[in-house]
Amino acid sequence: MKKHNFSAGPCILPPEVLTGAAQAVHDFEGMGLSLIEISHRDKKFVAVMDEAMSLSLELMGLGEDYAALFLQGGASLQFAMIPYNLMSATNGHAAYLETGVWATNARKEAEAFGKVTVVASSKDSNFNHIPKDFTIPSGVDYFHCTSNNTIFGTQMHAFPKTDARMVCDMSSDIFSRSQDFASFDLIYAGAQKNMGPAGVTFVAVKKDILGKNGRKIPTMLDYTTHIKGESMFNTPPVFSVYTTLLNLRWLKNNGGISWVEARNEAKATLLYNEIDRNPLFRGSAMPEDRSRMNACFLLNDESAHQSVFDSLWKEAGVVGINGHRSVGGYRASMYNALPLESVQVLVDCMKELERRS
Amino acid sequence: MKKHNFSAGPCILPPEVLTGAAQAVHDFEGMGLSLIEISHRDKKFVAVMDEAMSLSLELMGLGEDYAALFLQGGASLQFAMIPYNLMSATNGHAAYLETGVWATNARKEAEAFGKVTVVASSKDSNFNHIPKDFTIPSGVDYFHCTSNNTIFGTQMHAFPKTDARMVCDMSSDIFSRSQDFASFDLIYAGAQKNMGPAGVTFVAVKKDILGKNGRKIPTMLDYTTHIKGESMFNTPPVFSVYTTLLNLRWLKNNGGISWVEARNEAKATLLYNEIDRNPLFRGSAMPEDRSRMNACFLLNDESAHQSVFDSLWKEAGVVGINGHRSVGGYRASMYNALPLESVQVLVDCMKELERRS
Repeated sequence: MKKHNFSAGPCILPPEVLTGAAQAVHDFEGMGLSLIEISHRDKKFVAVMDEAMSLSLELMGLGEDYAALFLQGGASLQFAMIPYNLMSATNGHAAYLETGVWATNARKEAEAFGKVTVVASSKDSNFNHIPKDFTIPSGVDYFHCTSNNTIFGTQMHAFPKTDARMVCDMSSDIFSRSQDFASFDLIYAGAQKNMGPAGVTFVAVKKDILGKNGRKIPTMLDYTTHIKGESMFNTPPVFSVYTTLLNLRWLKNNGGISWVEARNEAKATLLYNEIDRNPLFRGSAMPEDRSRMNACFLLNDESAHQSVFDSLWKEAGVVGINGHRSVGGYRASMYNALPLESVQVLVDCMKELERRS
Repeated sequence: MKKHNFSAGPCILPPEVLTGAAQAVHDFEGMGLSLIEISHRDKKFVAVMDEAMSLSLELMGLGEDYAALFLQGGASLQFAMIPYNLMSATNGHAAYLETGVWATNARKEAEAFGKVTVVASSKDSNFNHIPKDFTIPSGVDYFHCTSNNTIFGTQMHAFPKTDARMVCDMSSDIFSRSQDFASFDLIYAGAQKNMGPAGVTFVAVKKDILGKNGRKIPTMLDYTTHIKGESMFNTPPVFSVYTTLLNLRWLKNNGGISWVEARNEAKATLLYNEIDRNPLFRGSAMPEDRSRMNACFLLNDESAHQSVFDSLWKEAGVVGINGHRSVGGYRASMYNALPLESVQVLVDCMKELERRS
């Protein structure tokens, strides 16, 4: 039976990307060798890395003043690399917007490097909304925010205008919607949502902001190391980079970000309309801050309906919709590769539950 | 035509490992989903990580006083993590043995953290041997060495006895030979030689050496973070870990390290015998320090023989034997998965060159 994969990440990838990745593990471009047993300095892999770097910038509409990097360590390592590279060694000061668990982890890591001002936090309401009424102190080294909060199902639909350098963790919504990417100085994302498999971390950084904070940075944590090395200072995560490239090509060939944005909006509208219409369910995030990537919702009467609903969606082939333990209920992640058909299957289960009760 | 893959890394993996990895990208254990689109918290992947951790320690004969970790960032990130975790914050002092480019990079990184004594270096002879006559200063936080030097084709066949903590970069010969692994306090290796594909870094660390150096360590660079997180503090490089597990199973099922050691010795003996016998060739490393993993050799008369020899091995399906630019000539890497048959094909090319000249 076909699975409808709503996993929060690692998550669904397009079937043709999976087929292409498996094929390359068998034999890479007719070489008679697997992708994973050739040198990363082979011209065929250098071409993969070059295309991944240029295509990611092209899809975001970013020019040569940005560098695209495919690194390791996940967003969690970026939490340290950002202050290492951007917070001044003397009187360092950064501003963080606290909209979820990952935003909090990023903020905590920065505190080891200098002064951190939390401009606003929605922690007291279990991160069910995005704070909007805040001021970024003047003179900070940078402002950091998290564009989409996977666990809580919230998403920033607008970003503050500020003179400060803008740093954004887009791990769970990068390449999902049209944005003025050039308004950010540094964008980063663990790949395992809309980009590709786990094991690679994407960074797009405006080159002229680097090398100015007076800090001695360990070689591997210094963005300039990886820019000079063209993202191959040391052996890159070959399989994850190649599969990400297949996924970026899939996005481009289908029409790019504007195409996927319309598709994502249709999926989110379908599901949220049912959450709001169906008297058995309610959403957990404030409506104006709802994420188009992760819809978090609850049964109004769990004891009466949970076991029937769980049977319904399991029988329909739906997987990965259990909510995070800190919110409970359900979380339907609708990343780029999820087809509208899968959302319809889930909505049909919700309607069937209503019919039976 | 069958390829004989002598690549220095990423390198050859056993055919059944490649088949298993490609299959898992199609469908993982009958789930109806790819390995790379399921949550790393799924019980099927948690079982993969648990087995990878326990099997790696089992193969090395290490007990519960060690933790096995599957991290990201390559050996190059370990170059910083080691002093961060092991060099004392006050009067830190470490000893490094300099046997090649990677050993030098490791040493340079440590110098940002405290005093570093280079106990010996073979740099002046282009790293063609392993220095043996050196003294490790008393009271150092640790002694660091590189067991095998891929670029120069040298390998440590003995390790110093010292009271200092022993730290060893085994990136290019781990799991290739019987060793007293318990004599080391920390062993690390980029996976892309004898372990698996690029994108994962193995660390085996004696747990009681950690948390004692008085240094504030960024979360992701702190080994204790990953021990507490059972190597899943954040999303691990799922594909690389799974493929590494397939390779560790292959090693165990065939007889473990003692089996592969005999196989590796047979391959190295076959090739070095030909290098020494054939008047057209010479080895570049000192014979007593020759690596069983990477044999570096040169033509005595390149202008007379290079083009014919290159045609011979290319026609025979040999790939990946061009030497590193800093040594020149040829480098035949004979990692665990390389069959004896491939070495015989290369030796036959060397004999054929002699016959024709």
